[in-house]
Amino acid sequence: MSPSLDSSAQNHGYITEKDDYLKRMGRIEGQARGITKMIDDEKYCIDILTQISALTNALEVVALGLLNDHLTNCVVDAARLGGPDANAKIKEASDAIARLVRS
Amino acid sequence: MSPSLDSSAQNHGYITEKDDYLKRMGRIEGQARGITKMIDDEKYCIDILTQISALTNALEVVALGLLNDHLTNCVVDAARLGGPDANAKIKEASDAIARLVRS
Amino acid sequence: MSPSLDSSAQNHGYITEKDDYLKRMGRIEGQARGITKMIDDEKYCIDILTQISALTNALEVVALGLLNDHLTNCVVDAARLGGPDANAKIKEASDAIARLVRS
Amino acid sequence: MSPSLDSSAQNHGYITEKDDYLKRMGRIEGQARGITKMIDDEKYCIDILTQISALTNALEVVALGLLNDHLTNCVVDAARLGGPDANAKIKEASDAIARLVRS
Repeated sequence: MSPSLDSSAQNHGYITEKDDYLKRMGRIEGQARGITKMIDDEKYCIDILTQISALTNALEVVALGLLNDHLTNCVVDAARLGGPDANAKIKEASDAIARLVRS
Repeated sequence: MSPSLDSSAQNHGYITEKDDYLKRMGRIEGQARGITKMIDDEKYCIDILTQISALTNALEVVALGLLNDHLTNCVVDAARLGGPDANAKIKEASDAIARLVRS
Repeated sequence: MSPSLDSSAQNHGYITEKDDYLKRMGRIEGQARGITKMIDDEKYCIDILTQISALTNALEVVALGLLNDHLTNCVVDAARLGGPDANAKIKEASDAIARLVRS
Repeated sequence: MSPSLDSSAQNHGYITEKDDYLKRMGRIEGQARGITKMIDDEKYCIDILTQISALTNALEVVALGLLNDHLTNCVVDAARLGGPDANAKIKEASDAIARLVRS
């Protein structure tokens, strides 16, 4: 994990949706275990690829949700900080978006 | 999982690389659990997104490896089958590729 | 083009980098014409796909640059607007990011 | 453009769909010019990003179509060649797919 502007802090306030994210992640963990088992059982390759695409899409939903939450908070934080700190916050978010677009 | 042309068969012969795939999947399962814990601990959003991008990239390596194995076998199978069955095999692979490109 | 929150306005202030964007787009237009010609000349498929990937990557650089510019301005605008208008701005940006991640 | 296994050859036999591909590329060229104009006119950033996503999706359709054509022919060619030449053909296609998935 690369260092971030705020990695030491603990509570970042997305608690309202937290249960939803945790449920999604529980399903994603199950999908990962299912893919491992399919490979171990030497299931048909195309079926495994279908499951990998499904897991990737499920993970994308989590990522886009977290990103939207972050931007909402980021706007408030950056506006409060102003100047170079605000720009650093935006740059950090843009870099995370670039990694998502390319991953 | 959508029905596939060969979903009933068990052994699809990628046994040589199987250990490598299983090791990768073991790490991916660990990454998924790590992301769940980060959300539960309300870690900084950007750090979670970084881990999600890393998991997606790791899964992509598995998918592209499986796809290469499949195409190698698919060529042999399709050439043996010939005609419409060969085209159906190719179509099935192309559809899996399209899902990967879009996921 | 779907309606946007601010589609009537003309000047959105990214003039400083405009020349750079226009140069990149000029090259992208050239790449698109090159791909058309390769198809018309029935060049080798893999070579055409390589050019398509290059064009996609070049376009991604433009998109990520514009998005970073937008977020920078968006922060200022949304902070000034406050409340539901701020959230609408963020939602609009998040939707654009989701389209990029999925495209 | 990286060297390919067959870059000198001219006719690769996808003539039947060629008109369709050329029509699609004509529209894509128009989309690229439209995006250039939007940047030059300093249109609203989100609207430009929407058009970039549309162009990327249109290009993806062309790429996936060409890839399907290639795999269909590739199977025949590789089966005819056999042995290491067949594997080289498959490897080349897999590499092109990896570039598409990552672009």
